[in-house]
Amino acid sequence: MSSNSSLDPESDSFESRPVFYIGQHDSTRKEALTDDQYTQVLNSGFRFVTAPITNQHFYDRVVDLHRGYLKEREQWTGSQQPNPSLPGPVVPTLTDKDTALYPSNYLSSLALYCSPWIDLCSPDPHISSISRQVLNLEAAYANFCGARTIVVPGPRQDDSGRGIAQYARAIREAMHVANRANIIIHMPMYREPGLEEKVETLSSIFNPGSGPKGEGKKEVDLFSAWDSWNTVRTVCSYSMRLFVAIRIPRRVPEKTLQERWFAEPLHYLTISQDIFQLNRAGHPSLSRHHQELINRYMRLRSIPWLMLIDVGPRPEEIASPMDQAAAEFPSLAEANQALKGNRVPRTPAMNPHVGYMRYLERQQPPFSAMETPALTSFQDWLQPPLQPLADNLESATYEVFEGDPVKYDQYEKAITEAMIEWRELKKPTSTATPENPSNPELVVTVAGAGRGPLVSRALRAAKSTGTPIQIWALEKNQDAYVYLLRKNKVEWDNKVTLVKTDMRGWEGPRLKGREDVIGKVDILVTELLGSFGDNELSPECLDGIQNHLARPHGISIPHSYTAHLSPISTPRLFADISSRVVGDPNAFETPWVVRLFALDFVAQKVPDHPRFQQAWEFVHPIDVLRADEFAAVHGKAAKYVTGGLGSMSGTSGTNEHNARHCHLTFVCPTRGVIHGMAGYFESVLYASQTGAGKEPVEISILPDQIDRKSRDMISWFPIFFPLKKPLYFPQDTELEVSMWRQTDDTKVWYEWLVEVYAWVGPNTRIKVGTSDLHSSRKVACLM
Amino acid sequence: MSSNSSLDPESDSFESRPVFYIGQHDSTRKEALTDDQYTQVLNSGFRFVTAPITNQHFYDRVVDLHRGYLKEREQWTGSQQPNPSLPGPVVPTLTDKDTALYPSNYLSSLALYCSPWIDLCSPDPHISSISRQVLNLEAAYANFCGARTIVVPGPRQDDSGRGIAQYARAIREAMHVANRANIIIHMPMYREPGLEEKVETLSSIFNPGSGPKGEGKKEVDLFSAWDSWNTVRTVCSYSMRLFVAIRIPRRVPEKTLQERWFAEPLHYLTISQDIFQLNRAGHPSLSRHHQELINRYMRLRSIPWLMLIDVGPRPEEIASPMDQAAAEFPSLAEANQALKGNRVPRTPAMNPHVGYMRYLERQQPPFSAMETPALTSFQDWLQPPLQPLADNLESATYEVFEGDPVKYDQYEKAITEAMIEWRELKKPTSTATPENPSNPELVVTVAGAGRGPLVSRALRAAKSTGTPIQIWALEKNQDAYVYLLRKNKVEWDNKVTLVKTDMRGWEGPRLKGREDVIGKVDILVTELLGSFGDNELSPECLDGIQNHLARPHGISIPHSYTAHLSPISTPRLFADISSRVVGDPNAFETPWVVRLFALDFVAQKVPDHPRFQQAWEFVHPIDVLRADEFAAVHGKAAKYVTGGLGSMSGTSGTNEHNARHCHLTFVCPTRGVIHGMAGYFESVLYASQTGAGKEPVEISILPDQIDRKSRDMISWFPIFFPLKKPLYFPQDTELEVSMWRQTDDTKVWYEWLVEVYAWVGPNTRIKVGTSDLHSSRKVACLM
Repeated sequence: MSSNSSLDPESDSFESRPVFYIGQHDSTRKEALTDDQYTQVLNSGFRFVTAPITNQHFYDRVVDLHRGYLKEREQWTGSQQPNPSLPGPVVPTLTDKDTALYPSNYLSSLALYCSPWIDLCSPDPHISSISRQVLNLEAAYANFCGARTIVVPGPRQDDSGRGIAQYARAIREAMHVANRANIIIHMPMYREPGLEEKVETLSSIFNPGSGPKGEGKKEVDLFSAWDSWNTVRTVCSYSMRLFVAIRIPRRVPEKTLQERWFAEPLHYLTISQDIFQLNRAGHPSLSRHHQELINRYMRLRSIPWLMLIDVGPRPEEIASPMDQAAAEFPSLAEANQALKGNRVPRTPAMNPHVGYMRYLERQQPPFSAMETPALTSFQDWLQPPLQPLADNLESATYEVFEGDPVKYDQYEKAITEAMIEWRELKKPTSTATPENPSNPELVVTVAGAGRGPLVSRALRAAKSTGTPIQIWALEKNQDAYVYLLRKNKVEWDNKVTLVKTDMRGWEGPRLKGREDVIGKVDILVTELLGSFGDNELSPECLDGIQNHLARPHGISIPHSYTAHLSPISTPRLFADISSRVVGDPNAFETPWVVRLFALDFVAQKVPDHPRFQQAWEFVHPIDVLRADEFAAVHGKAAKYVTGGLGSMSGTSGTNEHNARHCHLTFVCPTRGVIHGMAGYFESVLYASQTGAGKEPVEISILPDQIDRKSRDMISWFPIFFPLKKPLYFPQDTELEVSMWRQTDDTKVWYEWLVEVYAWVGPNTRIKVGTSDLHSSRKVACLM
Repeated sequence: MSSNSSLDPESDSFESRPVFYIGQHDSTRKEALTDDQYTQVLNSGFRFVTAPITNQHFYDRVVDLHRGYLKEREQWTGSQQPNPSLPGPVVPTLTDKDTALYPSNYLSSLALYCSPWIDLCSPDPHISSISRQVLNLEAAYANFCGARTIVVPGPRQDDSGRGIAQYARAIREAMHVANRANIIIHMPMYREPGLEEKVETLSSIFNPGSGPKGEGKKEVDLFSAWDSWNTVRTVCSYSMRLFVAIRIPRRVPEKTLQERWFAEPLHYLTISQDIFQLNRAGHPSLSRHHQELINRYMRLRSIPWLMLIDVGPRPEEIASPMDQAAAEFPSLAEANQALKGNRVPRTPAMNPHVGYMRYLERQQPPFSAMETPALTSFQDWLQPPLQPLADNLESATYEVFEGDPVKYDQYEKAITEAMIEWRELKKPTSTATPENPSNPELVVTVAGAGRGPLVSRALRAAKSTGTPIQIWALEKNQDAYVYLLRKNKVEWDNKVTLVKTDMRGWEGPRLKGREDVIGKVDILVTELLGSFGDNELSPECLDGIQNHLARPHGISIPHSYTAHLSPISTPRLFADISSRVVGDPNAFETPWVVRLFALDFVAQKVPDHPRFQQAWEFVHPIDVLRADEFAAVHGKAAKYVTGGLGSMSGTSGTNEHNARHCHLTFVCPTRGVIHGMAGYFESVLYASQTGAGKEPVEISILPDQIDRKSRDMISWFPIFFPLKKPLYFPQDTELEVSMWRQTDDTKVWYEWLVEVYAWVGPNTRIKVGTSDLHSSRKVACLM
């Protein structure tokens, strides 16, 4: 019962899972299906069907045309050799004998299949020309009929070298000809020598034996199919109308290749009949590896469709009068009705392969709490960075941030530990006076209190540890201040001293009973961190308030934070940012906040060069009061102070100590392409000062740390530093990432650059490329 | 006497040569020169002098600052280790004690030299930060004073790896700070281990022994200095204010490296005292290789200046009272006067090195006929391509084209040979009739006659060979037609039948005495070739008229033409095109006509893969009448003609036979960068049909053929197919160039793409990069 109700959308225990959208392709089909045939295929459980654009008649006609041309050419020139200076044959337009496809109300639910026998990369200029003409004729006609998707067979093994540019250019032209339809390139996940699709192509007819020999002996080049795809979509400028269909192989490849395709715009996963095994009961089934692969890809935001190849029913099967008599087929209208619902009604005629896929559909792990529609809608969605110091937030924004219990639990834990240790270590408090040297009241300040979540946590920590405190809350946003005033009355029993001020302009705490004296702060609590740690100017804000911190005992929560980087491949984001450049010329020099999802981490995990590397660190309070005071001290010491201070980019250099630079080396064993760097942060909120054995209280958004340090924390998405141009790299590469945090005393920005070096021998490393130097100066964060 | 008069600009036999502009740099100079000292240096023959921006006082102050900082840091942190989380020292602004440089009326003729002791790439974050501050302070101050040129010492050997990105970014920042001055990076031509400039840098003071060891053992990496420069200017986005000064080495390197630097924006050639040898008379001199190197670079359109380093006089020499007394120095005003003339007056005090350089100046080969100012002004000057079919030319443009005797001599030779062979082979003429089967009058047609130069040549050829002809001249430009009418009366004795028509619409010749019959043409003469052969639509125009050519004997002059390509490095053109993109978004997809000069052919000359490779060929007349007729024949033969013809890009495919495609492989042994492909053509105007032993009459603009086939022909400059982004390649690379000539029946355009493959083992070739697919469709040539 319970397992049933978990599948019932009306039930409370309903568990939601990705939906499988299953289609059928028959590689021997020579004509589009008739209405009746189409209805029958739908009834056997499929949701869509492929249809060849042209038929055998067209094929025969093209072959005859070229045969006639060759004969005539020989008569004209006396030679059998192709001569590129001679006009080649021109394929006449389609007639109604060449196709069974016409505009219809269900045509847009068909996937139209281009002729697999063309040979776009043929070294024979006439064959490649005919092939290109056929592709254009078919793409144009399918587009005319209203096709949404046109599937084009991918380049073959022997085209991956010299011919790939020619193939890619032809696809670009076809996209120009078919100017509305999506074009889907059908590729193997990797090329298995000897397991390539066998198709009789024009080349095999007219130039038999011209293909490369001994193909089977070659090593499997796992990334060659991906590489071909990468060339095609690069030549097509990452068009949003270009997708890839990948053919699931018999042997599931290693994770790196699976992840590579995960980042690509997968439109179909295609599964041939021969990938299925028969289980003990004689039913088709897939191996565990195949299941895991499918489950993984089904987690994509745009769920790929499943296309089963040659699993029946075949046209001759479904068209036989016997079958017609045996089953009662619903009309086309009825079938369309079924299509509109979420599930096709189970009929006794359901295809066994579809039945098995439906079973797999139910076996998927249900969506987790982190996969709610609200959260998945953020996947790969680019958000421009905040200007937290220049802008004021709205209440709803605060509410979103406050909705993350993990983060505030960690803060409360940090404050609690700090209070306990303060007592254990018998540190003096700022409230101590000569008259009352052991006054136990700790001075706690929450700077940038917003709507007060950290104030509440600090009060709870004080209560749970029995710590007497004096608490200040500072907030610059005048509207949030009103909210705080009310909350102080209603919730906090007026225990909190509220100050409406930018924390950098605060005069400091006037202690209770000693209002004439400006005191110091024992524990300063702030939540100023951005996705990259320092990117919302936490260092600059804390610089502006830390002179109020008691020395040497005062504590800043957070104690420190680090920024981390990893180069990634993320074609969708590249396409997205490219499409913005017209309206936003800085789009490629903007660090975007984005819930990265369809990405491939290209860097390997190796001990010296991990996948995620630390760029830099900030520690608070810094050991000197303020950079300018520090510099002034040196200036005086060196006796050269001349009225002004140092000069940096024409400014006075007071924020120079918050500049940073890193140079990181990432190791990539396989070839690939990167579109930018993913950025993350970690922060130590509080580290025990008694040391030994005590874990620091941390938060982290690093993919390999978040589950250990702050599981299910959702307050921060990663940051993405894009590259203007995708940077390709060969195998055994080191990506050297240089990044700078720059400042001119009024704003802060980042600059980044990637260099590619390949190892080509045990001691030889060559440079193979460099990105532009990118700078976010024009969209800098204002101080 | 004659040698004297050849140097006198007033004389008729005056020979012009590049002028040497010679300056002085003293590496031990710690202060800018005083006015008096400056005057004396000018009097010793120099035209400009370098001046350090800051002095010893500033240096001491910076060193003291850091020393004090280190001490204080140790007190604060108890550690001697640099800690990037700590604020570093801020260099205070300059005072009048730090510099001897002030705005003055001759400051813009000084080359200002940045402190060579900074270390922008130091791994110690504080040292690199101080260095950057020093560079910015100096650059800003020099810019304030009105400096035109600021020289910055280039990155050192050990900075060429990890540090180069940091160096490059610092230069970009300095260009931002000094926003008017030119920045010149002083580089060695190549890095000679052990022969690097020895300078005590901040790193050598504060981190002695931190540099790489055993440098001397390494092999010379000839291209490492160029590579560093390439990174710097790439990061600086090929700024037009960024130049390079190259230090001439003791051993002149191989030609490939010389040519690499030839293409770069050379501002200075610097020559150290120790590069000079003493000749038998004890005077300084340079080796023959050095002389040739200098002579070569002096041929650049922007002639580099020569900077002699440490050849005296030294400040202490020129400042000594004894010297002061010994010579009578002109005042500063007098010296400035001298500067304005072309030559510094020879005074007894002339520096012997300058004297020698003046001697070399006179020894240069004089400018040739191809180096007139009119011709050199076209060097590297981008011209948008012509639209010869859509636009009409002006008389002056025709006049320029007619001014090339070489081309028309070759045409006359071709027509002459054709006429002679016609007679020898006893071919029938089109004027032959049943009544007069041996009528000897050849029908000659000049199509696109312009102002008639080819008509004149055809008439001369007929006269010289005694060939009776009937001659037609077709011209579509109505204004040129007026000119032709007059010329026919005045010069041609009304022998020419003039027709105002587009040659593609001509009805054909109405033969004399048989005006009711449309005859055929025996010899068709056209000059429709562009820089790339077919780029001004010669194939399409000849298609439109060749049905009037007599078959099978009719002759087209030209008989055939071929297009040729070579990948090139040409940073100036890249910078130029980049600067046009705002106003012309297609600038990088336009094939530019340009007299390529400051370029480097990166491809090696190897037998299988020469430097210049043929892309494709066109032959006239084509063996079939018209492409559409030919296709129609096939259509009929195959019985599938359905009223229309074939479809190509949605068009009818009638021009498809003029589409072309090539895939060429170029071999590059050394690393480099390409900015596009240079395009050229060759044409066989007439090839003897009796064959054996007879050279065809040709014209060629291929750099390695023009002198042999059509020496001093100036009618065509090369064509340049640019790349949007410079494409870097490592050593042992193959550049695979794909190019297409595309057509949609109304226009013709090119598409091009470059792929980079590197050999990394005897059998292993890896892909390292691909350019975008470029297309000139938006600036296509209209048919």
